[in-house]
Amino acid sequence: MPCSWITSTGTVSDCLTDPLFLCVLSNTDTCLIPKISAAGASTERNVYTPAADSEIVVYGSPRSVPELPMKPNGAPTPAVMTRAALQLTGMPYLFVNSGLRIVPEVPTIYLGAEPGLDIRYGNAVPRADAIHERAAQVGLQLGRLSGKTGRTSTIIIGESVPGGTTTALGVLTALGYDYGVSSSCKDNPLEIKRRVVEEGIIASGITVAGARADPFSAVTAVGDPMMPAVAGLVSGMTQSGCEIILAGGTQMIAVATILTHLGLDTSRISIATTKYVYQDRSIDFDAVQSDLGCSIHIVDPGFLNSRMRGLQRYEAGEVKEGVGAGGAMYAAGMLGFDQKTMRERVEVVYGELMGLE
Amino acid sequence: MPCSWITSTGTVSDCLTDPLFLCVLSNTDTCLIPKISAAGASTERNVYTPAADSEIVVYGSPRSVPELPMKPNGAPTPAVMTRAALQLTGMPYLFVNSGLRIVPEVPTIYLGAEPGLDIRYGNAVPRADAIHERAAQVGLQLGRLSGKTGRTSTIIIGESVPGGTTTALGVLTALGYDYGVSSSCKDNPLEIKRRVVEEGIIASGITVAGARADPFSAVTAVGDPMMPAVAGLVSGMTQSGCEIILAGGTQMIAVATILTHLGLDTSRISIATTKYVYQDRSIDFDAVQSDLGCSIHIVDPGFLNSRMRGLQRYEAGEVKEGVGAGGAMYAAGMLGFDQKTMRERVEVVYGELMGLE
Repeated sequence: MPCSWITSTGTVSDCLTDPLFLCVLSNTDTCLIPKISAAGASTERNVYTPAADSEIVVYGSPRSVPELPMKPNGAPTPAVMTRAALQLTGMPYLFVNSGLRIVPEVPTIYLGAEPGLDIRYGNAVPRADAIHERAAQVGLQLGRLSGKTGRTSTIIIGESVPGGTTTALGVLTALGYDYGVSSSCKDNPLEIKRRVVEEGIIASGITVAGARADPFSAVTAVGDPMMPAVAGLVSGMTQSGCEIILAGGTQMIAVATILTHLGLDTSRISIATTKYVYQDRSIDFDAVQSDLGCSIHIVDPGFLNSRMRGLQRYEAGEVKEGVGAGGAMYAAGMLGFDQKTMRERVEVVYGELMGLE
Repeated sequence: MPCSWITSTGTVSDCLTDPLFLCVLSNTDTCLIPKISAAGASTERNVYTPAADSEIVVYGSPRSVPELPMKPNGAPTPAVMTRAALQLTGMPYLFVNSGLRIVPEVPTIYLGAEPGLDIRYGNAVPRADAIHERAAQVGLQLGRLSGKTGRTSTIIIGESVPGGTTTALGVLTALGYDYGVSSSCKDNPLEIKRRVVEEGIIASGITVAGARADPFSAVTAVGDPMMPAVAGLVSGMTQSGCEIILAGGTQMIAVATILTHLGLDTSRISIATTKYVYQDRSIDFDAVQSDLGCSIHIVDPGFLNSRMRGLQRYEAGEVKEGVGAGGAMYAAGMLGFDQKTMRERVEVVYGELMGLE
């Protein structure tokens, strides 16, 4: 293993060349259900989180939104890890707007997607196929651009979707998988999530057989607009022979499962996430690994050794992952940065965000 | 010269590697002034032209718009040349939305720009600096992505902006240059254009000295939103050492002039356009060459030998250029495609657009 703070399951390449980092930003009204998500300052404020996250990655602090996307005294948004990793590596990055209610003050690739609706009504992403088609166009072009001159290059795809673990649970349940689901909350509101998903599946009338035959029907019923966007990006990119890293926990497991049922060759796809997700006992990673067969990279940013209380909260299971943080840090590790350098850069970014220096 | 149907002025590299094609789409209300532009079916319909052009490039025909962006029996939109060149070369491409009134059904990079206002009122692009800043962010990332692993790569930037030659005349006049100006009309309505520009310059109160000290003030007064977008893209890209080709006629001369007055190193920038613009006696290309010092590539798609009447109209001076057609065909030529192959592909694309096959 070329990097002591990263563990990978399965067979993995020990090099990573020329990475491109993408982050898909989406809203789903599912996040407005009380107690579903901690990915924001409050349930009402969660809608601002993707926009704020992208602004923190680019500028170091939010611009278009009224407050920080985190609870007072809570763990910081994982955007601080993403920003730190992008700063260290200098890798190019782009954001994709797939159904935002609040458009950030950063450039975004627009797919014409509407925000996702509350999955309890069973029709959360009416045009999932259209989002997939547009995203596939972008993926094709970025794959060509990234893989020019026949090089094998790596594209890392993260997400920021408040409420996204619930929609992930929705799609995984619709497709007949029970891996459990992670959460941005320390105390995972799993019972609420399961009830919400159950309501949506009943309202949509979808069956496991129907969902497996047409994975977009599962997304349409109980998913969110990030899913067809990432699936489309990957579909387009695989045509150029890129290595693809899905950067996230449960949400990217859901996307990988969708890709499998779309019949896509997933041999060049792996998942990267933080150890905070991997250690979460509410997800059965062994079953994920066995079903998907893809490698999983687990990144430990070493916050146990941090003097900053907000980062220590990650070790206690708060927030855990998002904004492609695990994948961005994986790239930093593979490009030779050690854990201490990574952690100290996160501390600087976090300090600047909180106005501490 | 590696290619018989392309002529270049100045010292030029005889290779072009790994091109990326970008096209910036903008609207300006200036195009609603009667008789200003022929870049559409009619004055009222010109607003749809950028969206339709991008859809023709991607799909071969318009999707979100009511009719073709051209006059009945008129010369086809240059989008047919762009599509043909992209098909031949397989080069990656992306569209940028910098102030569209009609958003196309293709993915676009969104810069948060508002459509340009009628330049007669002297405040056509109120937030030119903000557009420049966002575009520079995109340019930086695309430059890094395109120039990964230290390769020198080429980025071609075109535009579709109905009314854009008038705003180009506006900015060139504000900056104190009198090269003349081309037109999408066979009979260039130069008198109307000059009067419109004069009105705008008076309304804005801008002086040549003021405009040269702050070129964005000229864009704000009498320009269009494409200009700060392309200038920003270039500003960001030059940090990665990319070769940049501005693909267009008068409009890209205006952008190159803005870049010069911004103090940017323009040694890696050249202009590519069609022979139809170059042969237009209303522009003084010798003066352009002498002032800007950059190479100009002139592409002859050979429509004199075409059996299709619409293409022959280009030889008579109709439409001339747009949608980065000259730059896209330049790339095709430099990548080894001959004039006949190019022309025949344009004929196929044009035939499909008109439903002729």
